[in-house]
Amino acid sequence: MSKPLTSLRTAVAGVSGYAGGELVRLLLDHPHLADTPPLLLGRSGAENISLTSLQPQLSGLPHADSISVVPFDWKLLKEEDIDLLFLATPHEQSREDVPHALANGLRVVDLSGAWRLQCEKNRAVYKFHDADPAAAAKLQAESVYGSPELHGPQIAAARLVANPGCYATSIILALAPLFHAGLVDLDHGVICDAKSGVSGAGKVPTANTHFMSAADNLSAYAVFGHRHTGEMLEQLNLTGDQLQFTPHLLPIPRGILSTIYVRLNTPASISTIQSCFDDFYADSPLVRVRRSPSLPQIQHVVRTSFCDLGFQLSPDGKRMVLISCLDNLLKGAASQAVQNMNLMAGWPETEGLL
Amino acid sequence: MSKPLTSLRTAVAGVSGYAGGELVRLLLDHPHLADTPPLLLGRSGAENISLTSLQPQLSGLPHADSISVVPFDWKLLKEEDIDLLFLATPHEQSREDVPHALANGLRVVDLSGAWRLQCEKNRAVYKFHDADPAAAAKLQAESVYGSPELHGPQIAAARLVANPGCYATSIILALAPLFHAGLVDLDHGVICDAKSGVSGAGKVPTANTHFMSAADNLSAYAVFGHRHTGEMLEQLNLTGDQLQFTPHLLPIPRGILSTIYVRLNTPASISTIQSCFDDFYADSPLVRVRRSPSLPQIQHVVRTSFCDLGFQLSPDGKRMVLISCLDNLLKGAASQAVQNMNLMAGWPETEGLL
Amino acid sequence: MSKPLTSLRTAVAGVSGYAGGELVRLLLDHPHLADTPPLLLGRSGAENISLTSLQPQLSGLPHADSISVVPFDWKLLKEEDIDLLFLATPHEQSREDVPHALANGLRVVDLSGAWRLQCEKNRAVYKFHDADPAAAAKLQAESVYGSPELHGPQIAAARLVANPGCYATSIILALAPLFHAGLVDLDHGVICDAKSGVSGAGKVPTANTHFMSAADNLSAYAVFGHRHTGEMLEQLNLTGDQLQFTPHLLPIPRGILSTIYVRLNTPASISTIQSCFDDFYADSPLVRVRRSPSLPQIQHVVRTSFCDLGFQLSPDGKRMVLISCLDNLLKGAASQAVQNMNLMAGWPETEGLL
Amino acid sequence: MSKPLTSLRTAVAGVSGYAGGELVRLLLDHPHLADTPPLLLGRSGAENISLTSLQPQLSGLPHADSISVVPFDWKLLKEEDIDLLFLATPHEQSREDVPHALANGLRVVDLSGAWRLQCEKNRAVYKFHDADPAAAAKLQAESVYGSPELHGPQIAAARLVANPGCYATSIILALAPLFHAGLVDLDHGVICDAKSGVSGAGKVPTANTHFMSAADNLSAYAVFGHRHTGEMLEQLNLTGDQLQFTPHLLPIPRGILSTIYVRLNTPASISTIQSCFDDFYADSPLVRVRRSPSLPQIQHVVRTSFCDLGFQLSPDGKRMVLISCLDNLLKGAASQAVQNMNLMAGWPETEGLL
Repeated sequence: MSKPLTSLRTAVAGVSGYAGGELVRLLLDHPHLADTPPLLLGRSGAENISLTSLQPQLSGLPHADSISVVPFDWKLLKEEDIDLLFLATPHEQSREDVPHALANGLRVVDLSGAWRLQCEKNRAVYKFHDADPAAAAKLQAESVYGSPELHGPQIAAARLVANPGCYATSIILALAPLFHAGLVDLDHGVICDAKSGVSGAGKVPTANTHFMSAADNLSAYAVFGHRHTGEMLEQLNLTGDQLQFTPHLLPIPRGILSTIYVRLNTPASISTIQSCFDDFYADSPLVRVRRSPSLPQIQHVVRTSFCDLGFQLSPDGKRMVLISCLDNLLKGAASQAVQNMNLMAGWPETEGLL
Repeated sequence: MSKPLTSLRTAVAGVSGYAGGELVRLLLDHPHLADTPPLLLGRSGAENISLTSLQPQLSGLPHADSISVVPFDWKLLKEEDIDLLFLATPHEQSREDVPHALANGLRVVDLSGAWRLQCEKNRAVYKFHDADPAAAAKLQAESVYGSPELHGPQIAAARLVANPGCYATSIILALAPLFHAGLVDLDHGVICDAKSGVSGAGKVPTANTHFMSAADNLSAYAVFGHRHTGEMLEQLNLTGDQLQFTPHLLPIPRGILSTIYVRLNTPASISTIQSCFDDFYADSPLVRVRRSPSLPQIQHVVRTSFCDLGFQLSPDGKRMVLISCLDNLLKGAASQAVQNMNLMAGWPETEGLL
Repeated sequence: MSKPLTSLRTAVAGVSGYAGGELVRLLLDHPHLADTPPLLLGRSGAENISLTSLQPQLSGLPHADSISVVPFDWKLLKEEDIDLLFLATPHEQSREDVPHALANGLRVVDLSGAWRLQCEKNRAVYKFHDADPAAAAKLQAESVYGSPELHGPQIAAARLVANPGCYATSIILALAPLFHAGLVDLDHGVICDAKSGVSGAGKVPTANTHFMSAADNLSAYAVFGHRHTGEMLEQLNLTGDQLQFTPHLLPIPRGILSTIYVRLNTPASISTIQSCFDDFYADSPLVRVRRSPSLPQIQHVVRTSFCDLGFQLSPDGKRMVLISCLDNLLKGAASQAVQNMNLMAGWPETEGLL
Repeated sequence: MSKPLTSLRTAVAGVSGYAGGELVRLLLDHPHLADTPPLLLGRSGAENISLTSLQPQLSGLPHADSISVVPFDWKLLKEEDIDLLFLATPHEQSREDVPHALANGLRVVDLSGAWRLQCEKNRAVYKFHDADPAAAAKLQAESVYGSPELHGPQIAAARLVANPGCYATSIILALAPLFHAGLVDLDHGVICDAKSGVSGAGKVPTANTHFMSAADNLSAYAVFGHRHTGEMLEQLNLTGDQLQFTPHLLPIPRGILSTIYVRLNTPASISTIQSCFDDFYADSPLVRVRRSPSLPQIQHVVRTSFCDLGFQLSPDGKRMVLISCLDNLLKGAASQAVQNMNLMAGWPETEGLL
């Protein structure tokens, strides 16, 4: 990691969605970027629109009322001396854009699922059609999974950071300390029962996101086939048989709570497990580890950049219930992207996030 | 009114929406219709679908799991000896269908806004294009506004009942006793501030009905131009300047609360006003008048067929705040339609509704 | 089972809570009880209150506006020729009342946890102090766990029916067919991740039930120590190590969804599992089994008496995710109590419940 | 106004409630107070508790995890060189504390209703029992109503600022420009129909704030007698007969929307009214005036320090509907208190609030 940058020029493609809106809010508010609001890029009808007509809640923030989305254009990115491009675009678009971006000398933080998965089998669910498969494979190998708590040094040096999925972040951060310490009984496997607010389903109105469908309801979906599963398997080095992930749609705007069931190799004490987590995250200011038996709740993390972790042990010390909470639009998307930017620029990890 | 029918064959066109679903539920459950489930009619892709795939919550009700929507067909209505046709269709469709229905000897309860308004100026907002304007005008004049508390005898004898709008029902029932008694100071006019749950906005997913837009929010809409205003003016015999109606979108699935502000001609006592309401609704089992200062709440009426009314007076007896609550899908739509059917068949008004 | 009763006199103790309110609603509406509204009993300040001041939403139902809660009195129960007493009281009170009730010749359906558990170890969590432990033990042994789908004939003949817990009902009904068929791999155990609406937490205002705590939130609680766990263990014949149950508080008024994780002894096909469920519940009209991969949602069961079950299998047929939904106040409490009454009276199981 | 302070020592009494929590959050985050976290004061059992056990959502903010509430003590305030005391205490307590605070040389921003009302008749609703009525009357006359948009210079110089009520702020800011321009027809009076989220009802669990009472509901309360009415009358110079205020409890955590009905003295054009508002708030960065017919919504202001205003005119230009939105805990309480502090310290009004 070279010395910190004094300034950085950023661009954001994909400003109309929920994660894009949160990302722009964080960048407008970022202490190192006060004089240089991000260049906002749009395509196919989403350009030449004022920021606040797309994201009315940003009105009043510095620069917010005077900037508009400009047509996506690689030349413009060069003319404007952009250093770092955030892609808050659909994964097909990100898959197409990243090779061009790197070729144009940009560094990229991609918030989509396009570059997160190294294993072709896991990636199959996205059905990518790369124009140049060999080049794509090379970039894929170069991309760094943007989990700052796990891959900080690699992120700092990366050209291409694949910002993790929201569910994946909540589950990987909860399990990483246990797997790192070799405590998990893999014969029994791990059960991850996750619940997410409706913003996770995107901004396009559908039957499922209609207020009447989502309110006063709860439903499971994508039971044996959610796209984020591959990220968990790869980051935790597991086979598909060893991790069961079930997402549910919660009747709240934002926030994820994952309840994770683990059997331990050998009975453990609360203090052993507590130390395992405390030590693992000692230098991770955006992960808050609760004292067992205290457990996180969604309200404690919504509109924050934190991932909160807590656990309880069965009386015999053999079974464990882990609770992991984060805001799916922040630590699960936009604030994790900014955290990655901070690392890439050599700034403190939490700059602009507390 | 002739003697009560012993049986009745009903059909429902438009089964996919919220009001249509509630209507079918009430008809399946109706004590006089136990052996004759309604014929369900659909058009343009909504036919040949099982009822429970359109309305899964009806599964398990008598007949519900074995009936399907059949293609709309006037001949079929005749073959099946249908007596009464409910239209839960868009108003353009109802405007087109009603002349054919009456020509085929059917009686009709139309849940849309197609036939509610006698005044052409009020009707203009709907922009109807009648194939035969003279015939339409004649049917319009014949149609009865389906407010059982106000027009019971006419409804009992009607061929065409125009089932009232949800907002209109809540406001007309609250004001009718006062206007009937001549107590309202019309120089000051009447202010109606109404709030409705999201089901009132229909089942089609839109940006406004997206959970993220509606939840944790409140917004006013159609401030000087809501379609239901005309019904209030006509039923209460007011000019547009004398009644101000403002609807709001509440972050709840169903229910309407209208807060109504009235100045009285002369100062009144609580007991005078209480008697005015009690007397007016003495024979109306589906209007519940609260003892002042007790006021209705939305929770008390949701999933019931009641309209609840309550009021408070200013200490000087000159000003009045009226609260009116009902379930927009029931007393504001489906159960009022069934109440009208009961009158048309000569059955007790509340049959199948308590 | 003797021949059906033509009539039955019922009493309800504990009318002020949510389950008690739903129970009274069902009894007032019950076709066999139309002429005999339940006698409502209260103690310590909850007596001599009109029903509708405790449960305003019942106003307008038959008898509802004219009945009041009378002081609890064994003599009165006799004078009124009560046959069946429903206890919707706290478990300590039920534990105390049941011996007197049986001694007075009453049959009892107890909605509390007082008499559900045969195993003393499981019962310890309730900390009962029986006046006459030997007599209590005898009654305990006589009591029938009121799950009509599992113990119909015993319920029909019982003097004392212990109405099951809401969570327990949802989980036991989901797992019973698999255990009955011997399909579950018990070495891996069963994980039950359950989520309940706030009515499950009772009517007394607390910090946890404050709107600000519950809304826009999700939290796990009682992780290794929920009282309903014992019921699941006893009914499914499991040890505490074999079943992990974690309840969560959902930001909705009512409804439970349980997500249940099972490993199978040998890989199974979807049709095998589907038949297992279909056959088991062929004669259970209040359990609706969905066709895999269709899954229940809370909205489909709220304000109904159904328990909906659905499942999906992993591609290799070894792992299974079960979803079970019910309304915690109905199939999880009041409607199951009425279902038990129907069996005890020899009436059809669903009488008054569809 | 003297020259800006370079630093300021603050104290907050009453940290456990919603407004107190938001206030502490804003002070911890305030750029001029980065090195000097507020002294937190508690009484009667609320002392010696860590901040984050009272307000868990603040964990991770600067200083938040290391500060605790200390016992309220005037000597301590002196020893710690406190300049400005925020009172987020009940109004009786504030009424008692303020004389001591001023006597001890402190400046005060009081968030309660204790010192807002100059007119004894309006104040009667609070039933104060002043130990020294004459002294209290003198302080009352000295107190400045803390609406920065209306009384900025007086606030800057004040010893005692009475921070306005949440409803009052939303309505006074909406009406002030019209009254200032003399446009309102007072013969017809003004109707204010306001709706507030549940946080406005306070943190103490009650039957009304129980999730089951508040969720999926709407109710009016305090119809002719809400405490904030007096503030509106005094600030707008109206008699009780000229302004009708009706609050409602919304099923959302936070936010107020007020719908205000006004008749104009003479018909006006949209541009006249728009200019009236634009001009009045030209130097008020925390009031956002929308272009008619665009209207504010609660979502646009929640968790911001803004008050959003919008309006529509009837076609004849005689009647007007105003919509005013703010976050009841921020512009309606805590951020307005910080805005007042900024003025008192000579800092920019929005410091720490955007």
